[in-house]
Amino acid sequence: MSTRSDAENQTASAAARIGIVGLGLIGGSVARGLRESGFTRHIVAWDHSPNALLQGVKQGVVDKAADSLEALVGDVSIVVLAAPGGACEALLPKLLKLADGDVCVTDVASVKGSLVRIAEQLPASLSARFVPGHPIAGSERSGVGAARGDLFRDHRVILTPLQNTHPRALRQAEELWQALGARVAHMSWQEHDAVLAATSHLPHMLAYALVAALARSSTRDDIFRYAAGGFRDFTRIASSSPIMWRDIALTNREPLLESIDTFTAQLNELRAAVQAGEGHVLQDMFVCAKAARDELLDGVETADNDQTTNNKGSG
Amino acid sequence: MSTRSDAENQTASAAARIGIVGLGLIGGSVARGLRESGFTRHIVAWDHSPNALLQGVKQGVVDKAADSLEALVGDVSIVVLAAPGGACEALLPKLLKLADGDVCVTDVASVKGSLVRIAEQLPASLSARFVPGHPIAGSERSGVGAARGDLFRDHRVILTPLQNTHPRALRQAEELWQALGARVAHMSWQEHDAVLAATSHLPHMLAYALVAALARSSTRDDIFRYAAGGFRDFTRIASSSPIMWRDIALTNREPLLESIDTFTAQLNELRAAVQAGEGHVLQDMFVCAKAARDELLDGVETADNDQTTNNKGSG
Repeated sequence: MSTRSDAENQTASAAARIGIVGLGLIGGSVARGLRESGFTRHIVAWDHSPNALLQGVKQGVVDKAADSLEALVGDVSIVVLAAPGGACEALLPKLLKLADGDVCVTDVASVKGSLVRIAEQLPASLSARFVPGHPIAGSERSGVGAARGDLFRDHRVILTPLQNTHPRALRQAEELWQALGARVAHMSWQEHDAVLAATSHLPHMLAYALVAALARSSTRDDIFRYAAGGFRDFTRIASSSPIMWRDIALTNREPLLESIDTFTAQLNELRAAVQAGEGHVLQDMFVCAKAARDELLDGVETADNDQTTNNKGSG
Repeated sequence: MSTRSDAENQTASAAARIGIVGLGLIGGSVARGLRESGFTRHIVAWDHSPNALLQGVKQGVVDKAADSLEALVGDVSIVVLAAPGGACEALLPKLLKLADGDVCVTDVASVKGSLVRIAEQLPASLSARFVPGHPIAGSERSGVGAARGDLFRDHRVILTPLQNTHPRALRQAEELWQALGARVAHMSWQEHDAVLAATSHLPHMLAYALVAALARSSTRDDIFRYAAGGFRDFTRIASSSPIMWRDIALTNREPLLESIDTFTAQLNELRAAVQAGEGHVLQDMFVCAKAARDELLDGVETADNDQTTNNKGSG
């Protein structure tokens, strides 16, 4: 919950040498935050884009650019895999094979099951170094130029360690996120993917489907002209990156399909009540929803500054 | 679009004597705004709650409380019916029967078809005084104590005159809303109810259905604990008044059912693409939605300060 003291961070930093694979908003923010916290004095990055690396070094986000994944892994104690979701599936096994026994490899992808399954197909000695992670934070901006050292402060980070993840690797990842001011939680990857399907992936699908349906309507212009603030808040997430959300939808397929089906059943129930004029059914449903949102969510809102993630960052 | 000059308002105010039926947030804000603009120096109110009337007079929102609808209608040139949706259906014919030929009766209800149908069953001489209206504005607060004179400034107001609405009554209603700084638009009640079903009533149903479905889930606590900002924005409207939204759903039944069906067809298409792993279908849909929202809606957002309406006000 709280950040470590500076003294503790200084101690941890004696050994912490950080490698960032994928230098965008998230990777850059991890780098900035770890430097600002004193957790490390050595950050090296690799990205498929030379421009991102150039910008990162020039702006002082990282100390140097690695020529290759090999060079990066050989030079660090923790690797943070912060590439786009699709690229992670190819990068993860490469990194685990390159890393020696003391290196922790952690990631920030929005879906955990696909990476866990890839890791579990590797020898246990390799997968033991992997700590799957997902910071529930992001920004509407993207790219290393938008990186902020406080992006994760007071936000939740969910770690979903494998059964054979080495305790030392897990501790390394926990210390990294704590240095960034994040609140670390653990759960199984199955629970993570189901919870995120319900709270993030499904709402994005509903917002996309709503706006797509309205955009096809013959009264499309009037619809958008007379949309009030409620509609704007409701559909804000439909302005998120189509590529990123295509990948999330396909990667978290089964939990997402389950969430869609649960939602559809509820909407069908609502529809039937509207058609039959059953006001008490509607009222009960709305009262239940309002109570759940007001009690559970607004309580969290007060204590928590988690922000939405639109174009980039965590889903 | 723009407000009338003070001089023009002073002229109009010579004759404008305002009656407010239903003194909550909307009725109170109409009263405050008309007084502040100089449009009227005479505002009388009726409400089924003596406390609301007492508060309105005490706080100077209105000049006096009417003992009855008869007393109110006999004392004014324009009646603004701002009672809750359900109550309007009983109040409207009473008001039209009490009003003499010079009195304009206008309303602020979120659904227009039900009131139009009631008016059309009355003699043409009575229904000619009715100007159905709907300000696309509101606040999360409710009650006359939350009334603000600028609630409608730069917001849209949709008027849906009947075929036989008298031009003078229409002009009276237009002048009233213009004095409040609102931007007046005209459309048929059918178009209004279809557009509002799509942009407001459907999103509320989706938000209620989503939160109700999640509240029933076995992982409910985790779901709300790990919900990020996107979920909070998306479900904010599920904290709206259950009673008000039950009434809107039942009153605007046919357009709402159509909107639900259009949405469900789109969601089914999305679901099928997820299940079949058809990334290009998802990407096309998301690109279409993002483009529609970014281009149409954000353009409006810049020019327009319309706010969401939650517990009270317009749906």
